Amino acid sequence: MHHPTPARDDAIEAACGVLQRLRATRPRVHCITNTVAQNFTANALLAMGCVPSMTLAPEEVAAFVTGAQALMVNLGTFDAERRASIDIAVRAAAERKLPWVLDPVFIDRSAERAAFARQLVALRPAALRLNATEFAALGGTETAPGTVAAFARANKLAIALSGETDLVADGVRTLRAENGHPLMARVTAMGCAASALVAASLAVEADAFCAAAAALIVIGVAGERAATKARGPGSFAVAILDALDSLDDETLRRHARVAP
Amino acid sequence: MHHPTPARDDAIEAACGVLQRLRATRPRVHCITNTVAQNFTANALLAMGCVPSMTLAPEEVAAFVTGAQALMVNLGTFDAERRASIDIAVRAAAERKLPWVLDPVFIDRSAERAAFARQLVALRPAALRLNATEFAALGGTETAPGTVAAFARANKLAIALSGETDLVADGVRTLRAENGHPLMARVTAMGCAASALVAASLAVEADAFCAAAAALIVIGVAGERAATKARGPGSFAVAILDALDSLDDETLRRHARVAP
Amino acid sequence: MHHPTPARDDAIEAACGVLQRLRATRPRVHCITNTVAQNFTANALLAMGCVPSMTLAPEEVAAFVTGAQALMVNLGTFDAERRASIDIAVRAAAERKLPWVLDPVFIDRSAERAAFARQLVALRPAALRLNATEFAALGGTETAPGTVAAFARANKLAIALSGETDLVADGVRTLRAENGHPLMARVTAMGCAASALVAASLAVEADAFCAAAAALIVIGVAGERAATKARGPGSFAVAILDALDSLDDETLRRHARVAP
Repeated sequence: MHHPTPARDDAIEAACGVLQRLRATRPRVHCITNTVAQNFTANALLAMGCVPSMTLAPEEVAAFVTGAQALMVNLGTFDAERRASIDIAVRAAAERKLPWVLDPVFIDRSAERAAFARQLVALRPAALRLNATEFAALGGTETAPGTVAAFARANKLAIALSGETDLVADGVRTLRAENGHPLMARVTAMGCAASALVAASLAVEADAFCAAAAALIVIGVAGERAATKARGPGSFAVAILDALDSLDDETLRRHARVAP
Repeated sequence: MHHPTPARDDAIEAACGVLQRLRATRPRVHCITNTVAQNFTANALLAMGCVPSMTLAPEEVAAFVTGAQALMVNLGTFDAERRASIDIAVRAAAERKLPWVLDPVFIDRSAERAAFARQLVALRPAALRLNATEFAALGGTETAPGTVAAFARANKLAIALSGETDLVADGVRTLRAENGHPLMARVTAMGCAASALVAASLAVEADAFCAAAAALIVIGVAGERAATKARGPGSFAVAILDALDSLDDETLRRHARVAP
Repeated sequence: MHHPTPARDDAIEAACGVLQRLRATRPRVHCITNTVAQNFTANALLAMGCVPSMTLAPEEVAAFVTGAQALMVNLGTFDAERRASIDIAVRAAAERKLPWVLDPVFIDRSAERAAFARQLVALRPAALRLNATEFAALGGTETAPGTVAAFARANKLAIALSGETDLVADGVRTLRAENGHPLMARVTAMGCAASALVAASLAVEADAFCAAAAALIVIGVAGERAATKARGPGSFAVAILDALDSLDDETLRRHARVAP
């Protein structure tokens, strides 16, 4: 199997396609995430046209996952009950061949979380969304592009690595998404919202590499548009929801910056 | 017992009375709701002049309910511990003859939630706040006005059915509240906040039909005022809190639209 | 040991020093708080330049506390699991001589919470942040300045008592922080955010009295600046995050109002 590195226009056109299909089909996206991030993440999904659900209860998470088109699992809530819920949710997703995204938040702070994240990677998420510190805790290596690509290839998934420049890799293709704004790191749950958008994109785009790239392009461009209206991190968190809602193909084509 | 369908002016004047009494008496409203909705719901109650509390712990929920003037129960958080808390809270409310509202969120997604909601209806909430899909899951019927009224009559409660036009019914009277804005469906927890306002209204208005109508008129008018200031769902969620805070009789009388 | 009551300029210069060190060193602050308050509290800490973490799981809270520079414990989430987490977190803090703040929220509503709060005070927090009703429930006395100072002295901690005028006392020194705005009482989690800022200040200021005073001065001035931009409690909650982010020494020196 050989994919050429997509040209700039291909990635941006793919993002436009994802955006259109999200608005048109309004997929259901179930999120298992920490209580800090739930509200902002739900609002980010709603701003994109999706229908979020967020229940964490082991008794019913399978029913919600089964009724959804994609799943996002964030490790920020990590007690015994949540681990049970994640386990049930991931198995329900596998059974239905539903794509899911893993966001191994803060695994650099706790060895138990890192061990649990490694088990989850073995259960075959379609994509991982994380930052460089978390990647190092997961993979045991630095985040040179080569090591990220090797990890993606070995685990048969797409990686969306957030940073000053975002990196997307699936072991065959690589793309740098260069949009974004420093205020994105000053609002809690921005990474979780990005992971939820990767899940949403997977609901309408079978190619995990394209889906991950589309999500990072979308949130990066929205962040830049929001920064032009914001007076600080409080108004930025509000403005990025408005920007996700009003984002269209023309804005994406004009402002998206990607590189191989 | 026979109540005539209230004239337009009666319903709006009743809403003005509820608004004034909320500002004057600042009732305590306890909410058992999901963690996605807690922050926005608390802020909506504070904007109306109420004092919210939100503890979910079975150990102390009875003390909080006993110290409150109304209770709102939302099924969005639904694990074993929450079911225990709801059970304790509802019994504490019954003991003190405290009015309570049931919001059976997402019962269409999970048969267990629907079954639990039916048990709760039998424990006599003063009001139900829900949407058409949830009503269908609860009542087993379509949401024609006649079936809603019949369900209200059979269960001796008021129903506040949210939709493009809201319907309020208690089996004898019916009212359509026509305010609102499409952005209200693009912000998470808006329905939960509406349910909390029904509970707040019940704290100062013994007639559950009038209380439910007042709450829907208030949030619908606030939503319309907020939409004139908003650039999207992010700024709308902020603006509706400002609008709830600044709402007064004159604004209600000028903008409220109700029909039998 | 004798400290003179600090002059106005001393307290404000100490606040400027805390602000500078927070921006420069970006301390990690772990918060155990209720799910209503988590998002706003995390964003307030981020706006000040800190790195918040919020996990509540007993399995890993010790690892997060050990990696942090200060801890804030808020009793708003109060079930068996949370009590266990608080116990573990406080012991981890004591072991590392990490400063921690107790916010005994709503202990006036529940005798069990009040009893637990008294146990925690015996474990030697560096500071208490609370309001007059909570102080009365804790100390069994009114909140005359003399009784607050006596409680602080007896328990060897600093007290930050929020009210129309804030009072800071450590049993030797007393200070009144006169900034703030009525809208601060109309937004949920504002008190919890203030407690988190006391914890953040303790991460960079060993004198608990100075740290508590700095935090109250900072949030009070930010609240006043935010009120000039706000149209109600919704936009105020956004504007105070912007104000915390943009706060600088010049603004503090121009606007801070303190009295002995």
